[in-house]
Amino acid sequence: MILVINNQASEKEIEDVKKKIHQFGCEVYESMGLNHHILGVVGDTSDIESGTFQTISIVDKVILVQEPYKKANRLFHPDNTVVDVNDRSIGGKKLAIIAGPCSVESEEQILSIAKSVKNSGAGFLRGGAFKPRTSPYAFQGLKREGLELLKFAREKTGLPIVTEIMSTEFLDEFVEQVDVIQVGARNMQNFDLLRQLGKTNKPILLKRGLSATIEELLMSAEYIMAGGNENVILCERGIRTFEKYTRNTLDLSAIPAIKKLSHLPVIIDPSHAAGLWWMVEPMAKAAVVAGADGLIIEVHNDPENALCDGAQSIKPEKFDRLMGKLKILAQVEDREI
Amino acid sequence: MILVINNQASEKEIEDVKKKIHQFGCEVYESMGLNHHILGVVGDTSDIESGTFQTISIVDKVILVQEPYKKANRLFHPDNTVVDVNDRSIGGKKLAIIAGPCSVESEEQILSIAKSVKNSGAGFLRGGAFKPRTSPYAFQGLKREGLELLKFAREKTGLPIVTEIMSTEFLDEFVEQVDVIQVGARNMQNFDLLRQLGKTNKPILLKRGLSATIEELLMSAEYIMAGGNENVILCERGIRTFEKYTRNTLDLSAIPAIKKLSHLPVIIDPSHAAGLWWMVEPMAKAAVVAGADGLIIEVHNDPENALCDGAQSIKPEKFDRLMGKLKILAQVEDREI
Amino acid sequence: MILVINNQASEKEIEDVKKKIHQFGCEVYESMGLNHHILGVVGDTSDIESGTFQTISIVDKVILVQEPYKKANRLFHPDNTVVDVNDRSIGGKKLAIIAGPCSVESEEQILSIAKSVKNSGAGFLRGGAFKPRTSPYAFQGLKREGLELLKFAREKTGLPIVTEIMSTEFLDEFVEQVDVIQVGARNMQNFDLLRQLGKTNKPILLKRGLSATIEELLMSAEYIMAGGNENVILCERGIRTFEKYTRNTLDLSAIPAIKKLSHLPVIIDPSHAAGLWWMVEPMAKAAVVAGADGLIIEVHNDPENALCDGAQSIKPEKFDRLMGKLKILAQVEDREI
Amino acid sequence: MILVINNQASEKEIEDVKKKIHQFGCEVYESMGLNHHILGVVGDTSDIESGTFQTISIVDKVILVQEPYKKANRLFHPDNTVVDVNDRSIGGKKLAIIAGPCSVESEEQILSIAKSVKNSGAGFLRGGAFKPRTSPYAFQGLKREGLELLKFAREKTGLPIVTEIMSTEFLDEFVEQVDVIQVGARNMQNFDLLRQLGKTNKPILLKRGLSATIEELLMSAEYIMAGGNENVILCERGIRTFEKYTRNTLDLSAIPAIKKLSHLPVIIDPSHAAGLWWMVEPMAKAAVVAGADGLIIEVHNDPENALCDGAQSIKPEKFDRLMGKLKILAQVEDREI
Repeated sequence: MILVINNQASEKEIEDVKKKIHQFGCEVYESMGLNHHILGVVGDTSDIESGTFQTISIVDKVILVQEPYKKANRLFHPDNTVVDVNDRSIGGKKLAIIAGPCSVESEEQILSIAKSVKNSGAGFLRGGAFKPRTSPYAFQGLKREGLELLKFAREKTGLPIVTEIMSTEFLDEFVEQVDVIQVGARNMQNFDLLRQLGKTNKPILLKRGLSATIEELLMSAEYIMAGGNENVILCERGIRTFEKYTRNTLDLSAIPAIKKLSHLPVIIDPSHAAGLWWMVEPMAKAAVVAGADGLIIEVHNDPENALCDGAQSIKPEKFDRLMGKLKILAQVEDREI
Repeated sequence: MILVINNQASEKEIEDVKKKIHQFGCEVYESMGLNHHILGVVGDTSDIESGTFQTISIVDKVILVQEPYKKANRLFHPDNTVVDVNDRSIGGKKLAIIAGPCSVESEEQILSIAKSVKNSGAGFLRGGAFKPRTSPYAFQGLKREGLELLKFAREKTGLPIVTEIMSTEFLDEFVEQVDVIQVGARNMQNFDLLRQLGKTNKPILLKRGLSATIEELLMSAEYIMAGGNENVILCERGIRTFEKYTRNTLDLSAIPAIKKLSHLPVIIDPSHAAGLWWMVEPMAKAAVVAGADGLIIEVHNDPENALCDGAQSIKPEKFDRLMGKLKILAQVEDREI
Repeated sequence: MILVINNQASEKEIEDVKKKIHQFGCEVYESMGLNHHILGVVGDTSDIESGTFQTISIVDKVILVQEPYKKANRLFHPDNTVVDVNDRSIGGKKLAIIAGPCSVESEEQILSIAKSVKNSGAGFLRGGAFKPRTSPYAFQGLKREGLELLKFAREKTGLPIVTEIMSTEFLDEFVEQVDVIQVGARNMQNFDLLRQLGKTNKPILLKRGLSATIEELLMSAEYIMAGGNENVILCERGIRTFEKYTRNTLDLSAIPAIKKLSHLPVIIDPSHAAGLWWMVEPMAKAAVVAGADGLIIEVHNDPENALCDGAQSIKPEKFDRLMGKLKILAQVEDREI
Repeated sequence: MILVINNQASEKEIEDVKKKIHQFGCEVYESMGLNHHILGVVGDTSDIESGTFQTISIVDKVILVQEPYKKANRLFHPDNTVVDVNDRSIGGKKLAIIAGPCSVESEEQILSIAKSVKNSGAGFLRGGAFKPRTSPYAFQGLKREGLELLKFAREKTGLPIVTEIMSTEFLDEFVEQVDVIQVGARNMQNFDLLRQLGKTNKPILLKRGLSATIEELLMSAEYIMAGGNENVILCERGIRTFEKYTRNTLDLSAIPAIKKLSHLPVIIDPSHAAGLWWMVEPMAKAAVVAGADGLIIEVHNDPENALCDGAQSIKPEKFDRLMGKLKILAQVEDREI
């Protein structure tokens, strides 16, 4: 932490700031710039409230040097994390392809899609049982019945299931029944939920919030990891920008950025990003060559009658052709599908 | 709802779309533009999934005409809503001034601040007991003990208390003990929480999410209102933009916008918006003359040692001087403090 | 400038960086954090290309301490700048109210509006002669004829005229004929134009770009000032954000921010910000109490038939009522109109 | 164009609006929604000022159906445009790889880089002679001398040269000497410059502004094309968002979006987007598989001593390895390099 001190500060005022730094068990190094006086704070500053020094009138700026996350930080954990899910894994050489409908609608629907995406090479089945919807009047998911149907599809296909949790209320059921628990973008900073998930040992698929910085995403991962659960998979799914042609703007540069800052696996959701089915293919391909560890793709056998997000779902045949292309690109990148 | 149809669509394809519209109990009006064929959907379209028509290949665009919220919509409720809180109200001629520390830290602290802001003319006491913090290592609030201290301060000063709920887990305690339940920006789309709050009759202070549109804020209000609780107060607290000199960008145009779209009261939080104590005064004044129904301001007797958000808190003396200025402006605007 | 050095750097590599710092005539202070090695660069760093050190592989971060602008910086010029325009001034106790149509359309139109806004108390007349339009097919202004009409209106009313320059091609004519030369938001970083304007001594009204940070706005002012022209007036006119209910989001916190960072006057354009005539009044009032030095407001006698921006123009009667309200607020703020 | 009329409008008021529509030579179709009255405007609406109807008090919303660009619109020009540049082309099967330094610094530098990138397979040489810099104190380019050096490098290597124009002042020289004239992001809406370029027949590389929507980019292309010059190449180079880890956020979904809306070629600038040299490779690869028609990449033989943008430049050896990978990906995509 570096403090830039106003050049009109008195010696007494500067002494007071130094005393305060020492109270946190840190040391001070000092230097005079041309127009600024600089105080460097050496030691573990991660417990110092950022506001602590900003409130002091002679402090013009507080600059953080150290990233505020530890367990998610590649600095302290140089090797890539590989998260095990049943007999599979996410973060290794093999790309994790998670596919399925936005929401589980019926036994027939989920089973048909599950079989189909499995045949095309997907490794995991996604499907929403509890759905976060902007409108209280929209379909909110089949809830517990949806979980049952997902389990049924898993039984029939062997695909591990990935589904979103919306509240701590159902935590025990999710831990018991689900293979990967997804935290949606809108809940990325639902800290109570993160903390509870940190006490389990379930793989958590943590989606980046619509306007969350990469650092905030890593801090939310840190919440889960600080509780003891290091099985966190990060997911970029589009951020909110001024551009409205696409629903969100897919930030593929988040892949190399996160790979540099953290050791956690990163997957991409090309379906929610643009919200347009015909953009899924180019963005999925781009993600693979940019270094993603996997993809989560919405596939629906009847998008026009889907109960949610039909506009961004692709049909099984289209998914199959896409997988063919992705396999070639994965090979070029020395990965597998 | 208006559908813009591709000019290469066949008659048969258009017929199919019309049939689908009729299935929703809506009627179709039709018109040919120079390069586009237009289908208007007349009837109650609020139950139609937006994706329903976007998935059809001949549909180029789906344009919504009707706002997706009903109970929060001024169209169906022309008069301003006034929310009663104990013997006070929010949304009437008198501005609601809510003041207090970011977090409750001790009996002495909260009582001292409560007395002080009351003397300056504040009508409500704010204070965090459960704190949403970006870092798992930061102070998370005194929790239940914080609630007890707030109640103690209320008992001594008569000020109704406003505090944030972070999870449905503590809902009953909040309903029993708190006067206005605050939903923080990060939980604005925690739909489970909103739904539960909709089943109570408590006044809810709903903060706009960092990157939520005004329409999304109103949809979240709709969640609470759809459950039967119409005591919703909206709060603008700064949105996330590219500008980083301020922590967020206070969107004061949200005041006239919300007043036009909705009948619910709107208050402004100038403390969280910029995150800089010296911007609280100009932004608070601006909010009052722009038509806000109130303000929520962080006041701390010792910002330099505050356990959170010290950088944006003002001292009681500064708050007192600010209130003097606000009273004059309120009078100019034919409001009261 | 502060360099954060990777903790895996060798002594040799660090020595090389220090040598490079010395080459720029700067000194180095050094300190070891827990996980980082810090090199502080002391001296005039404003000539060092920011990329110079970022390219070195052992440098993890380059942190700038000093603002990159000098002449616009309040640090070196503590007193407010007051810009003289004919017999008036901008930046002093009296607020500068600039009013008039988006574009000059006819002698009758500009004269009628000029007289009307003068009667209401405006101090300056605005009107576009050369219009920057998103579409090549839209009305592009009366150009030279527009300038003539503005001069005619000035002759009849005595109001100094403010109008936008779009290209260096017409620079001489503008210098000779216009009282305040406006640089539009889209040209805020047209550096050639800025440089040319820096060689004149005309007052320049510099509008903030749609997505320009406050620092970038000050750097563009610096371009003009570096050439010797210190008569710069800054103008906030709304920034581009994700919110689309308003055309742009008016950033009123830019007023106190700029006042802290710079000595230049700041005015607000409430018309272009929201793009909605009914938001002009609340935002104009908010700007005055937030500390703006003036306003630039679009007034049109026949908005429905205006050749541009009718949607954000207010009628003369509405402007007159607004001025009545602004006079009271100015008085409360110890300013005048 | 569709007008949503307030449900409290009188018949007389609606009649007036219809008359106005007829005045523009358009026809009206009409329909009653449940809560809104809808007027459809049929005919060529591209000449109607968007504000024309928004100013009418009974008009709640104006919805545009037709895109405002014509010549750039794929609707009227279904086939891809291929722009010829000397003996090469941009927009065909062969990807256009444009490489070179941020700015031309010396004969030795530009020649060495030109030879090197040619050997690696680049088809065009880029290099800045006139440099737009945020700071007036930063290196502004070698200007005319830079153009001479570029011509010299072209003579020696045969690579067509691409360089940025900053002002109409040098237009004739650029037309005579340069092969592709680049319009930088900051000048995307310098309409005077665009108009002048429209009168030439030079290939124009038009970069998307930092906060320009895709539609605005296409409108700026339209400015050039409306003047008669249809040789426009579009370039996405990162947009401004809240995320600050990267300098800008590369919007790769702009590739399929532009391909759908327009027939013009699209290239990607992975260097300016992130501003980080180590992100150039993953983003360049992603661009190719997402369907880009080419890349513009900064290559410098000595990034640490580059006079600008060193932080985002890659060395020739790195560029060579990157080209090897891109060739494989191009082949997979049925393109060539």
